[in-house]
Amino acid sequence: MKEVYYMSKDQNTVYVGSKPAMSYVLAVITSYNSSGTKNVTLKARGRSMKTAVDVAEIVKRRFIKDLKANKITIGTEELPQQEGGTRNVSTMEIILTRA
Amino acid sequence: MKEVYYMSKDQNTVYVGSKPAMSYVLAVITSYNSSGTKNVTLKARGRSMKTAVDVAEIVKRRFIKDLKANKITIGTEELPQQEGGTRNVSTMEIILTRA
Repeated sequence: MKEVYYMSKDQNTVYVGSKPAMSYVLAVITSYNSSGTKNVTLKARGRSMKTAVDVAEIVKRRFIKDLKANKITIGTEELPQQEGGTRNVSTMEIILTRA
Repeated sequence: MKEVYYMSKDQNTVYVGSKPAMSYVLAVITSYNSSGTKNVTLKARGRSMKTAVDVAEIVKRRFIKDLKANKITIGTEELPQQEGGTRNVSTMEIILTRA
């Protein structure tokens, strides 16, 4: 995930890693509340993809009822290995949209 | 996942569990080859969601180049617990469509 992301009022991104889901749930809610944005994007790869789905579902069911997981895309990234060569890792992006 | 699925020529479903991704890759390819269908659906929940994304990406990149992960939906299922109460588990469905 080395692309450059342009952060604007309408586009907030939360990178999901190995912390508990609730940390990212908080990040999503904070993002909505502080910026007044309609869209928050969750990005994850590998094992963290499970957490990203959990986060989307928890925010939707418990906190922001009018939220939708509007667009979900998957892909593959090639990670260079220390011992040479590359390893493929799956990636996932979930765009959450508030009505 | 206790719904009833109607298997028809156009709708094949592969349930992704805890086996290695390649087992499910094989199931998807077999499904396409044996039925001549255009759509194969991957269903997974919890940790297996990572495997489902891996399977979709491997089939697309290595085996069937004209494949698209056409529609991805996520949801939550309530699993009854032995000790009473329920536990929520995230679910995912990836519809693979061949051009």
